[in-house]
Amino acid sequence: MITDKNGLTIPTYEDVLEAHERIKPYIHETPVLTSRFLNELTGAELFFKCENLQKAAAFKVRGASNAVFGLSEEKAALGVATHSSGNHALSLSYAAGRRGIPVTVVMPRTAPQAKKDAVIGYGGTIVECEPSTTSREEVFAKVQAETGGDFVHPYNAPRVIAGQATCSREFLEQMQEIGVKPDMVVAPIGGGGMISGTCLTLSNLAPDVKIYAAEPVNADDAARSFKAGHIIADDAPDTIADGLKVPLKDLTWHFVSNYVTDILTATEEEIVDAMKLTWTHMKIIIEPSCAVPLAVILKNKDVFAGKKVGVIITGGNVDLDKLPWN
Amino acid sequence: MITDKNGLTIPTYEDVLEAHERIKPYIHETPVLTSRFLNELTGAELFFKCENLQKAAAFKVRGASNAVFGLSEEKAALGVATHSSGNHALSLSYAAGRRGIPVTVVMPRTAPQAKKDAVIGYGGTIVECEPSTTSREEVFAKVQAETGGDFVHPYNAPRVIAGQATCSREFLEQMQEIGVKPDMVVAPIGGGGMISGTCLTLSNLAPDVKIYAAEPVNADDAARSFKAGHIIADDAPDTIADGLKVPLKDLTWHFVSNYVTDILTATEEEIVDAMKLTWTHMKIIIEPSCAVPLAVILKNKDVFAGKKVGVIITGGNVDLDKLPWN
Repeated sequence: MITDKNGLTIPTYEDVLEAHERIKPYIHETPVLTSRFLNELTGAELFFKCENLQKAAAFKVRGASNAVFGLSEEKAALGVATHSSGNHALSLSYAAGRRGIPVTVVMPRTAPQAKKDAVIGYGGTIVECEPSTTSREEVFAKVQAETGGDFVHPYNAPRVIAGQATCSREFLEQMQEIGVKPDMVVAPIGGGGMISGTCLTLSNLAPDVKIYAAEPVNADDAARSFKAGHIIADDAPDTIADGLKVPLKDLTWHFVSNYVTDILTATEEEIVDAMKLTWTHMKIIIEPSCAVPLAVILKNKDVFAGKKVGVIITGGNVDLDKLPWN
Repeated sequence: MITDKNGLTIPTYEDVLEAHERIKPYIHETPVLTSRFLNELTGAELFFKCENLQKAAAFKVRGASNAVFGLSEEKAALGVATHSSGNHALSLSYAAGRRGIPVTVVMPRTAPQAKKDAVIGYGGTIVECEPSTTSREEVFAKVQAETGGDFVHPYNAPRVIAGQATCSREFLEQMQEIGVKPDMVVAPIGGGGMISGTCLTLSNLAPDVKIYAAEPVNADDAARSFKAGHIIADDAPDTIADGLKVPLKDLTWHFVSNYVTDILTATEEEIVDAMKLTWTHMKIIIEPSCAVPLAVILKNKDVFAGKKVGVIITGGNVDLDKLPWN
């Protein structure tokens, strides 16, 4: 870790190597899949890094495991806590379960039952709040005061970003094995944890690989921030890509503003189309959030055609009884 | 190939090696995935060989490619033809497309639209028949007389079985890489092509690995054949596992009767449950036919618990607009 002139603690590539060593027993090396059909459709050569096939079906297990297994024995004994209605909640519960320490998650009472069930399945404790920022912060403050558990932020934390960064490291190794050098990588952007990890690894190992972020038009705060040159946070964006509603924070902004080439956006319809295309032709279950990269690739052929493009599929937690095309 | 005393031409392991060399440019090395959740649920250690992530989303591309690329130039010029309930049709269409030769397939009019669309997408010509073995064979005889194309039987053909056998070869290599020796392998059984290929490879490379076949109760002709000691064929069984409706034939019966340990069956409800379990926890799209192995593993814990079990996921061609739990 280094500390910059503004007092921001920034993870370094050494932290990534350390994270990778630490979390290896608890994560899958996820496969890189390809699709002739989607290559022909996009005109690009796509390499899908399938973190939907990761433990807990989300890349977030990487960062969560690094946070949990990086704790000292004393700190770990107090457990961990977070607020999240999505994949970070499941991932942190999984990691805490593997270490055998308590985990408390503050979730809005309106969160999908399937996600609550998964948290409980991994041994997590849920404390419900109202679906508002005020309530969430209030309830979380109480939980933290009571448990003393270490707060693992879903994305704006050096240990978490160092964990997510192992995904791109693994991807580059896998590409090297098949003798392909990617020209660019595209990942979805919400709070910016995955993109920050991608920046951290690529800026060290392959600085000539361009990094694109993909965002829903309906939650395009990162794209607007990128253009404005400072963080713009939306209050309550509404998109089917439920993992991408949260705003950038100082640490993820550091990576996004320094290393990202561009942030491209897709409409709700384009996202659902790309999601169904992926299910149909790749036979993998991806959530709406990680269909956004394919949607922007289809929409911006001038940028991607003829290129070798890594696409990070970030998660696969979908309610199978409520599919967006039914 | 060897010819037995009854005049049956039987592929040997040398044919498998030749097939593997021949088809490698046209197939994926599919990943082997695991699921802690399903391990805990079954009490076994399961290793899923994911042929749903194969080209054309089916293991059948292996046998079809071996058949198509094994043809002489003159024979190939006339094209190929077949009858199939689905995956063989699109696999043969894929392989013929890669070689650039014509392909005609006879399909039951009730075959899933997704499979028909895929055949057309690969450039195949469809001729429809009624959903019974009798009708299929009648219509096919006409088609073959008209086109003169080489008949690639979906399963009862040495070249096809040698191709399917490459799946288990790949699986054993992948297991060796992770240092695990499987105790048994389970695959679905319809006509017996995949099971025969599995028998061919395992009886040569790992004869102590037990081979179980999994079949729907509603189309349990192979299980009844196995008990009776001779082939029993049903004309038009009705099951959601649409890939498993066809009967054994002499060549597949040779392998099944000589090398299979047992054939276990599952009900329609058990199959759908296992299918949804796999989608939910493994984030891969599998068709009903290849949920049958997991269904029988869940049902026969006495057989599988405590064992290292290879599970062949044979295909992923499902109509996403018509899911069995919606």
